[in-house]
Amino acid sequence: MSGGGDSAGRPGDAPRPSVASSVWRVLIGRPLKSSEARHGQITPLEGLPALSLDALTSVAYGPEAIVLVLGTAGVAALHLVLPITISIVVLLALLVISYRQVIDGYPHGGGAYAVARANLGNGAAQVAAASLVVDYTLTVAVSIAAGIASLTSAFPALTHATVPLCLAELALLTILNLRGLGETARAFLLPTVVFIVGLLAVIAIGMIHPLGTHLTQPGQSLTPTVDLAPVGVLLILKAFSAGCSALTGVEAIANGVPLFRPPRQARAKQTELMLGVLLGVMLLGLAVLVDKFHVGPRSGQTVLSQVMAYSVGRGWVYYIVSLSITVVLGLAANTSFGGLPVLASLLARDHYLPHAFALRGDRLVFSKGVWALGIVAAALLVVVRGNTNTLIPLFAIGVFISFTLAQTGMVVHWRSARPAHWKRKATVNGTGAVVTAIATIVFLISKFVEGAWVVVVAVPLLILLFQRIRAYYQRLSGVLAIGEVPPPPHAGRVLVVVPVNGVNRLTSYVISEALSIGDEVVAVAVTFSDESGSEAELEQQWNDWNCGVRLVTLRSQYHSVVRPILRFLDALQRQEEGFEATIVLIPVIRPTKWRHRALHNQLDLVLSAALQDRPEVSVARIPVTIDQLERASTRRGAE
Amino acid sequence: MSGGGDSAGRPGDAPRPSVASSVWRVLIGRPLKSSEARHGQITPLEGLPALSLDALTSVAYGPEAIVLVLGTAGVAALHLVLPITISIVVLLALLVISYRQVIDGYPHGGGAYAVARANLGNGAAQVAAASLVVDYTLTVAVSIAAGIASLTSAFPALTHATVPLCLAELALLTILNLRGLGETARAFLLPTVVFIVGLLAVIAIGMIHPLGTHLTQPGQSLTPTVDLAPVGVLLILKAFSAGCSALTGVEAIANGVPLFRPPRQARAKQTELMLGVLLGVMLLGLAVLVDKFHVGPRSGQTVLSQVMAYSVGRGWVYYIVSLSITVVLGLAANTSFGGLPVLASLLARDHYLPHAFALRGDRLVFSKGVWALGIVAAALLVVVRGNTNTLIPLFAIGVFISFTLAQTGMVVHWRSARPAHWKRKATVNGTGAVVTAIATIVFLISKFVEGAWVVVVAVPLLILLFQRIRAYYQRLSGVLAIGEVPPPPHAGRVLVVVPVNGVNRLTSYVISEALSIGDEVVAVAVTFSDESGSEAELEQQWNDWNCGVRLVTLRSQYHSVVRPILRFLDALQRQEEGFEATIVLIPVIRPTKWRHRALHNQLDLVLSAALQDRPEVSVARIPVTIDQLERASTRRGAE
Repeated sequence: MSGGGDSAGRPGDAPRPSVASSVWRVLIGRPLKSSEARHGQITPLEGLPALSLDALTSVAYGPEAIVLVLGTAGVAALHLVLPITISIVVLLALLVISYRQVIDGYPHGGGAYAVARANLGNGAAQVAAASLVVDYTLTVAVSIAAGIASLTSAFPALTHATVPLCLAELALLTILNLRGLGETARAFLLPTVVFIVGLLAVIAIGMIHPLGTHLTQPGQSLTPTVDLAPVGVLLILKAFSAGCSALTGVEAIANGVPLFRPPRQARAKQTELMLGVLLGVMLLGLAVLVDKFHVGPRSGQTVLSQVMAYSVGRGWVYYIVSLSITVVLGLAANTSFGGLPVLASLLARDHYLPHAFALRGDRLVFSKGVWALGIVAAALLVVVRGNTNTLIPLFAIGVFISFTLAQTGMVVHWRSARPAHWKRKATVNGTGAVVTAIATIVFLISKFVEGAWVVVVAVPLLILLFQRIRAYYQRLSGVLAIGEVPPPPHAGRVLVVVPVNGVNRLTSYVISEALSIGDEVVAVAVTFSDESGSEAELEQQWNDWNCGVRLVTLRSQYHSVVRPILRFLDALQRQEEGFEATIVLIPVIRPTKWRHRALHNQLDLVLSAALQDRPEVSVARIPVTIDQLERASTRRGAE
Repeated sequence: MSGGGDSAGRPGDAPRPSVASSVWRVLIGRPLKSSEARHGQITPLEGLPALSLDALTSVAYGPEAIVLVLGTAGVAALHLVLPITISIVVLLALLVISYRQVIDGYPHGGGAYAVARANLGNGAAQVAAASLVVDYTLTVAVSIAAGIASLTSAFPALTHATVPLCLAELALLTILNLRGLGETARAFLLPTVVFIVGLLAVIAIGMIHPLGTHLTQPGQSLTPTVDLAPVGVLLILKAFSAGCSALTGVEAIANGVPLFRPPRQARAKQTELMLGVLLGVMLLGLAVLVDKFHVGPRSGQTVLSQVMAYSVGRGWVYYIVSLSITVVLGLAANTSFGGLPVLASLLARDHYLPHAFALRGDRLVFSKGVWALGIVAAALLVVVRGNTNTLIPLFAIGVFISFTLAQTGMVVHWRSARPAHWKRKATVNGTGAVVTAIATIVFLISKFVEGAWVVVVAVPLLILLFQRIRAYYQRLSGVLAIGEVPPPPHAGRVLVVVPVNGVNRLTSYVISEALSIGDEVVAVAVTFSDESGSEAELEQQWNDWNCGVRLVTLRSQYHSVVRPILRFLDALQRQEEGFEATIVLIPVIRPTKWRHRALHNQLDLVLSAALQDRPEVSVARIPVTIDQLERASTRRGAE
């Protein structure tokens, strides 16, 4: 049988919302119907601000990283920037192809986790998941701190407010993502477009007809003019690995496939392709210009800033593009908000995380995952006081572990599925796996002391957590006998205990309810040993009332109502046998006006809090309004 | 019948206390038996630190206030310090005599409130109570801020931590008073004794053989050497009123009579007398020395400091006594913690404040009053940022209103009771009433613009609050028909609604309990419109189980479980008639370990929060442990 549900009414129909909940509704928007899901889901163009900013903004630090490593070996080594960038772009192409295949094969998202789970087993899947969780959390903290750092270098007066500013941006991101990723993406579209168009224009102008070639660059060159070290394989490997940090974020789209508007896979693949082309063009263009303008490491100037200045001069174009880079660096944090909640929902479905992560909130987003990411990132930002330097060495390792696992998983996939051209496909993925594995190892070794050890510790701890959680759920599932037909239900006798403190209409109301529910009813009252007389008086009133229910008065030597009642219940349960259930009914007067609540003693709250952990006893709070009491007495008077 | 209660067991026997509650126990001490009440109550000597510091420390600012007012009129006017002090001490004597009579007549405490209520009616009693509440709250804030201000002038590095220091001291006072006033008094006894003995010694030495008469005082004299203004009645009245600030706190003992160890009245009267004698001797002694040493207002030096320096020189005695004054000024806040909670308990018994204020906590103190005072004073300290200057003009007015009402009330008392010598007694109190009334009016007029208007606004607002609260309790009492024999209880039919999300042993357990309780049971499940299949599957499982209870599945267009259930209950209540009660049973799995709670969805909390304001529906959360589920299924299997 299928009942009415809420199909008829308006969503805003909930009973008297509080001020706080109204404010909250304005912030995150009205609840959405499942059929409105399209509204909350994204198009390929929106996919760029929503899921690709982490990757795209890496043009701000990827080329820089290569130049810095090579610069240590002297001017001659800088000619290697272009070949190394070309090989990174080749790797990018491998990854984009591979993740487009992942999107096709694993439409529920999860990326490396889903691939590893299907092809490499639970162990590898957990490694992939833990690595991604660590990396996504770091991405949020690092991106926000980087964005705010460029804000405070522009306005030094704000420096002392770094942490509050970081937290404010994080709060904004969290709220936007609780509204839904679609709205977030739309809000971020403008700066993203300015950034992409601006940087492509800078590259084009630099290639064709640079405007600022005769510009004197501020700062001092940091490159030794003589060759200090031989350009060996190790240096090239280090420069390559450093430049690979430009590839983080390429996996986010495959993780977040369910966020796209149907047809999901097609749209996600379009976004992945756009991301790959844009990022590849930008990286190659910048490398060509670095070579053309003989750009090297320079004090107080980034490589990107030097290239831009040579291309278009230090005019308004330079400043607008710089500003847009600053803005999108901050917004890159959003990539994690796109990827992590979906990944967490998959982990929750596989019983590796609390099931609550798999529940959609009333805006249809995985709100628990958004909340968790916001809270953990806030804690990280507070601990490192908004300073990214401690976090950057930890960054990117997680993604490269997941890259390696995803590629390896795809190789296994092709070997077992054997579609047409499977050997070619497997070779592509195999190459990717080897290259990303090398990059991972170089990362880990070169940054181990600086902080990469944290990842080496955190990933196994997360895996341990996943396993403990899964073990609990398995035990629970066994106890609940899920999947079996449970024993038939079985009605039994019920004992009801009613705490009372006087004889009045409320007592009458709640004793009526107790008699309706229970097979046996006991009223219980607590009196204090220093208030003599109150006990005798209460018993007298009770006897006068003569309601047929026995009253037990507990004389307490302490001024505590809760403890004697707990003891009484203990004693009762030892004495009385044969009851299916013991229920404590606590009457709660509900005043019509909120402010009148303070005038009631709230003993019900104290008592139900004290009782809630007694598994042998159920607690029912019986809310009674003043109107009800009046009506109840009239009704019964008329009978 | 009278049951076991807790007489047998130890108080610490409560089930698994949390870490927070253990820490709390260490802070405020174990619960006390009512028979241990003596332990928490105070002797006359302890009455000085507990209830008299506000009055005693006024020697630090009372004489100062007189000298400052007279100093404006030139050197000659300073000779009036002694006669004005004598008249203040006469008023002090009147007040002490009067309050000793109040203690005799009103042994439950409350002071001016009790006197006014008995003799002048409810209106005057509310004025007295509101004035005292305002003044006690200000006393806490002013005393703490003054104590911390002298600390930060000694250690200027602490100045930026003024507000945290104030709040820390307030927290300490609050915790000590939650432990019980007796322990607080013992903790404060040493500085109080040092202060009293030290200052008396300073006065004695100054009288007999001053050691520092040839000392050069730092700072500049602020007294004009020519007579600037004629010494008129108005100036004398202003100086007198200003000096009267030394009398605040004299009423606290009468307010706090129940805090004394029996025989209460005798002990309270002893303390009142000790306070009167000590304060009188100190004030007179200081006035004589001011006259003798020709002390006038001086920049950067208090009058008390000058007198002390002339008497004993600037040696270690000077510094020890100065330090003790600093310490006890801060502790003077404790006077309010002694007086206000008792006053609030009386107001609560008379239905002017929430009844919770009349409940003793498990340390036998009126803990709600202590909490309320701590919280309001903390808010005040934060608002004024630990700076007393904004609060001092508001201070003392409330006490003088209550003085006037108490004295007037005593006159009425003597006129109606007419004991021996009633005319003399009435004359004493009548004189006191007139003098304190004049002081009140001078206070109000001279400080109105500086802030006394706040009191003029706050007192009527408090009275309005008292009346609104009383009106609510009166309505409630009418509705509950307290004092009447209520209608007989009446068993009826019960409808039980059980939210389910699957068919398993937990379902079986809770349906069993529902069948035991209710006359009709409905199971209800929510499915989401975008998860097709789950509904049919659930219904299939339910039918396979065939438990005899009907299942209603609610298809929700929104991702919210709560809203469909609320709507279902609304619809149900319109359809179904003739039920005495509707109960929603919410099963809650209680894991053995706390940390496992995060693994459950906590939907029970959300649902019971949403339902708690529906008066037509009672909510019972059924806690079920994993052990119980295992046992329940075994037991039933065996039957």
